[in-house]
Amino acid sequence: MNRKITRQDMADAAEKYKNWGKWGPQDEIGTLNFTQAEDIVAAAQLVRKGKVISLALNFDNNGPQGAKSKYPSMGRINPVHTMLRTGAYSGVLDHRGIRAADDMVVMPLQCGTQWDGLGHVFYENYMWNGYDCREVTSAGAQKCGIEKTKNKMVGRGVFLDVARALGKECLDDGHAITCAELDMTAAKQGIKFKRGDYIIVRTGQMEAKLKAGSWDGYPGGDAPGFSFETLDWIKRTELAALASDTWGCEVRPNESEAGINQPWHWITIPIMGMTMGEIFYLKELAEDCAADGVYEFMFVAPAIPITGAVGSPTNPLAIK
Amino acid sequence: MNRKITRQDMADAAEKYKNWGKWGPQDEIGTLNFTQAEDIVAAAQLVRKGKVISLALNFDNNGPQGAKSKYPSMGRINPVHTMLRTGAYSGVLDHRGIRAADDMVVMPLQCGTQWDGLGHVFYENYMWNGYDCREVTSAGAQKCGIEKTKNKMVGRGVFLDVARALGKECLDDGHAITCAELDMTAAKQGIKFKRGDYIIVRTGQMEAKLKAGSWDGYPGGDAPGFSFETLDWIKRTELAALASDTWGCEVRPNESEAGINQPWHWITIPIMGMTMGEIFYLKELAEDCAADGVYEFMFVAPAIPITGAVGSPTNPLAIK
Amino acid sequence: MNRKITRQDMADAAEKYKNWGKWGPQDEIGTLNFTQAEDIVAAAQLVRKGKVISLALNFDNNGPQGAKSKYPSMGRINPVHTMLRTGAYSGVLDHRGIRAADDMVVMPLQCGTQWDGLGHVFYENYMWNGYDCREVTSAGAQKCGIEKTKNKMVGRGVFLDVARALGKECLDDGHAITCAELDMTAAKQGIKFKRGDYIIVRTGQMEAKLKAGSWDGYPGGDAPGFSFETLDWIKRTELAALASDTWGCEVRPNESEAGINQPWHWITIPIMGMTMGEIFYLKELAEDCAADGVYEFMFVAPAIPITGAVGSPTNPLAIK
Amino acid sequence: MNRKITRQDMADAAEKYKNWGKWGPQDEIGTLNFTQAEDIVAAAQLVRKGKVISLALNFDNNGPQGAKSKYPSMGRINPVHTMLRTGAYSGVLDHRGIRAADDMVVMPLQCGTQWDGLGHVFYENYMWNGYDCREVTSAGAQKCGIEKTKNKMVGRGVFLDVARALGKECLDDGHAITCAELDMTAAKQGIKFKRGDYIIVRTGQMEAKLKAGSWDGYPGGDAPGFSFETLDWIKRTELAALASDTWGCEVRPNESEAGINQPWHWITIPIMGMTMGEIFYLKELAEDCAADGVYEFMFVAPAIPITGAVGSPTNPLAIK
Repeated sequence: MNRKITRQDMADAAEKYKNWGKWGPQDEIGTLNFTQAEDIVAAAQLVRKGKVISLALNFDNNGPQGAKSKYPSMGRINPVHTMLRTGAYSGVLDHRGIRAADDMVVMPLQCGTQWDGLGHVFYENYMWNGYDCREVTSAGAQKCGIEKTKNKMVGRGVFLDVARALGKECLDDGHAITCAELDMTAAKQGIKFKRGDYIIVRTGQMEAKLKAGSWDGYPGGDAPGFSFETLDWIKRTELAALASDTWGCEVRPNESEAGINQPWHWITIPIMGMTMGEIFYLKELAEDCAADGVYEFMFVAPAIPITGAVGSPTNPLAIK
Repeated sequence: MNRKITRQDMADAAEKYKNWGKWGPQDEIGTLNFTQAEDIVAAAQLVRKGKVISLALNFDNNGPQGAKSKYPSMGRINPVHTMLRTGAYSGVLDHRGIRAADDMVVMPLQCGTQWDGLGHVFYENYMWNGYDCREVTSAGAQKCGIEKTKNKMVGRGVFLDVARALGKECLDDGHAITCAELDMTAAKQGIKFKRGDYIIVRTGQMEAKLKAGSWDGYPGGDAPGFSFETLDWIKRTELAALASDTWGCEVRPNESEAGINQPWHWITIPIMGMTMGEIFYLKELAEDCAADGVYEFMFVAPAIPITGAVGSPTNPLAIK
Repeated sequence: MNRKITRQDMADAAEKYKNWGKWGPQDEIGTLNFTQAEDIVAAAQLVRKGKVISLALNFDNNGPQGAKSKYPSMGRINPVHTMLRTGAYSGVLDHRGIRAADDMVVMPLQCGTQWDGLGHVFYENYMWNGYDCREVTSAGAQKCGIEKTKNKMVGRGVFLDVARALGKECLDDGHAITCAELDMTAAKQGIKFKRGDYIIVRTGQMEAKLKAGSWDGYPGGDAPGFSFETLDWIKRTELAALASDTWGCEVRPNESEAGINQPWHWITIPIMGMTMGEIFYLKELAEDCAADGVYEFMFVAPAIPITGAVGSPTNPLAIK
Repeated sequence: MNRKITRQDMADAAEKYKNWGKWGPQDEIGTLNFTQAEDIVAAAQLVRKGKVISLALNFDNNGPQGAKSKYPSMGRINPVHTMLRTGAYSGVLDHRGIRAADDMVVMPLQCGTQWDGLGHVFYENYMWNGYDCREVTSAGAQKCGIEKTKNKMVGRGVFLDVARALGKECLDDGHAITCAELDMTAAKQGIKFKRGDYIIVRTGQMEAKLKAGSWDGYPGGDAPGFSFETLDWIKRTELAALASDTWGCEVRPNESEAGINQPWHWITIPIMGMTMGEIFYLKELAEDCAADGVYEFMFVAPAIPITGAVGSPTNPLAIK
């Protein structure tokens, strides 16, 4: 698209891609419904090496939320981990007759490797399936809370190493990944999509930031990522969820005119009902797939079922 | 054992069950090492129905830490989930050009369905593998942090419904589960243990509390659970990790003399290097296994890799 | 009032006691304006013994929010204090060349001795001075944030020991303090009110709970406290702020019909613009005033200026 | 001092300035003891205009802990303020029959305008008065907790505008304030010190940072501040507490050799027992004192008595 996306374009896209009602008026999990029991059975058959690869960054003070950003963080900080008791506590035994350590975390649920739940982004006054966006009150998401996904996030994982397919270590900031590039990557890797897949796309940006030793620019800054047109590809593939190694999956600067921030999010989450994974760590998976040429695996990435949460940290596992 | 366990008994048990060095002097994950690649491949073959059963309680203010208890909570509270932004935030679009909600959680890592990592309990001055317990500083666990397990917690799950095998809805408080009862349950269920299994044991206590509508007595109170003698069974089965539906896995009141609290923990975690799952929600798994007679499954329960944490909330999945 | 207060009574009271606009349309601090510079100078003259009496409960896990209550706590917990570093940290010197301890607190701002700011309670769709109640967004109070009071909370303190004046250790739960009782107490103590006073009223309830060793029933339970009619007395005295030793200042059970909770709050905070102190610890002040017969003093109780907060913990000082 | 301060110099200073035992072996508040009842009475006489000036920065996400710093923050973050309920919550009345907003804060106690309590810094294995530094456990400061000061922090305030006295808007980073400069400032301002004073010293650094619109360099960076030799002046003046407008009061880079960080802190807090105020906002006080030529006032700056805390946020008031 050569011109900037307008509010009218957004309305048109909302009309075109709307999945509301597809899984009934009570549905709260959207495209996670695409994965059926037989897909899970098939996914398990992909476990051939017995190798488990975590796609999580560790959660700590070195995370991306510590970076300076022009984008307002609005409360997002790196996790704060504190000990309630340590190994030094009270000499040999504490007064309860045991030596033990406990700890606590204070963490924004969007601070690291995470699922964006369906209560995270709204389209105008609506959330997924047409629920009123005011259902996300200060008491939490009364609809589409992340806890509704507690039996989900299991299926066939497909890895698309777009950076590698394009012969780059890292896609450039502002590189808008197209449908054609996604299809080309799949073709190059010899893989076909199936309904209900969990698709994980690598831009290389996180590795570049890690290599540079600074997250500056990562949260809310310019980034490679999905172009608006990939809504078509998402619709066509009937994927369960989509994840990437960037802060926000979609390309930045956005392709939209002023006043429209993250246009792809406006459609994917509330209109299509797509759960989205962000800040996935893909270095080891990329190396493993490049080495064995196998880009599919069993994918298990359970959310922590925090009642009413609009997202969740996760430790996504690729099991090959 | 008819007499109370003494400090000398503890020292003897520490000597007898010690796994220090078994996986080298640098090891930080203990019995999780028992699960090998081939075990993971085999576990995946157990996925036959494509059914995913979450073993997590939701994390919220209705959790067990809100109960009154004579046992000092020492900082353990129910999770506090707060919204950083809601669906009502700032009219139609916020000043960033998007309508979105974010949230935050404050949670002790031992507040709900959880893994006790190897930094959680000490034996005298030592943690697992002989590390100095002072390695768990106020900056977190410098050794055996839960993030070291990020590629683990995948394997064959075996469910032992001891309550059902003994013909009870819920074992009585103070019921000390014996090695014989565990073996009898396995036999009755027609299942055999394999090295590297993740074994999950049901007492029924959590369901009784949920039915009663009150957690009173659950955290730190009397409970059914593993007897001290099951250390033998743990050693023999070479399990990867063990979990249960109670607050603390082992029987309470403890079998030990005054001044020794949670004697089984003293040995399992720091001496044997066994990661332990607590407050697992087993109702649905129990019903499913009773219905299909299949007590084995693929088990995936990744910890959230919070650097230096001595435990982690988890959403454990039984995949059948 | 013999019959229950109705919604119409609320509307009538709102009309009668409304101070909106009294200090201009931009005002955000209400009755704190009553205290003038000369009142502060005069208050300082009351310092004759050089004695400082704190009216704060310590903030810790023994606070009132740990009590069971039928009243939904809605997120209020006791403060959680955790150490970021301790005296045991890292041997002799930490890597920065200093031995030091830091700490952190997680605290609901309404969890202990506190000021209720003017953003805390709404009347229908309005907050103090007619501001839209939606000005209190998830980003905090855009109007009437507690930080607006940072140069206030200094003036003449007047202590009314109503329990003592009525010859009781503690007023009964449900005892509705009347205007006549407040005037009688002042007369008995030989004290007259002046515009801009900070008036502190003792019921004895907190001391009774402390003596009993349990806070059960304190947060949200039955309590002695201000009757609805005291709105008249508040208006007449032109006080700056009012505080008491109970959880919520006003009598409970409330004098209102079903569906109207804390009717006195509905008027005092949003309609009159009165900042309110709750959970004040008055034992030492009561003893001192009884001993020297002096019930007035300099009162200094600064709020912590947390931007956009609807309240603040405070350590109120009576300086005699 | 022209050469770098060594460990031997530290030992000598510790010997020379040690106040341990001066107020008995049980003392936990150190130099706060210097202020006597008559000093408080006299301080109140300084209230002549009825003007209250807050010396606190607001506590929010714009605070100094958000700045990048080479100095490890070790868990210090800006306060995170979140709403538990907002003005938009649940339509007109919530289910409890009231419309109200509540909130919560997560804050390191050293994150803004603050008191460093006597448990904050250690000298070798000791804290103030010779207590073992391990008294500051993960359960908090068992000795010298900030709650021990709850009836203190009231006295005569003396303001030393060193920047102004030296004809500068802001002292240069690395400017080590000498005893002579402090005395000269007092002389120029026509003020004499008295035992038990609360002395507040302005370098202008905070105002420079606020003017620049960036805190970069403020936390842990280079700064003007007290030279090591001012220990002499502290001893001589017998002040109650000392505060400044910088992050850490003392000059940075420090005057010490490598491995000794914040040498002045090593002596002031644990050896002399001096409570210290940091990150005080002095712009308005400076302007007022310059205008009326009065550099003394009543000072009231109560700590929030968080049990076992090693410091506290505060809203310090200068009352003139």
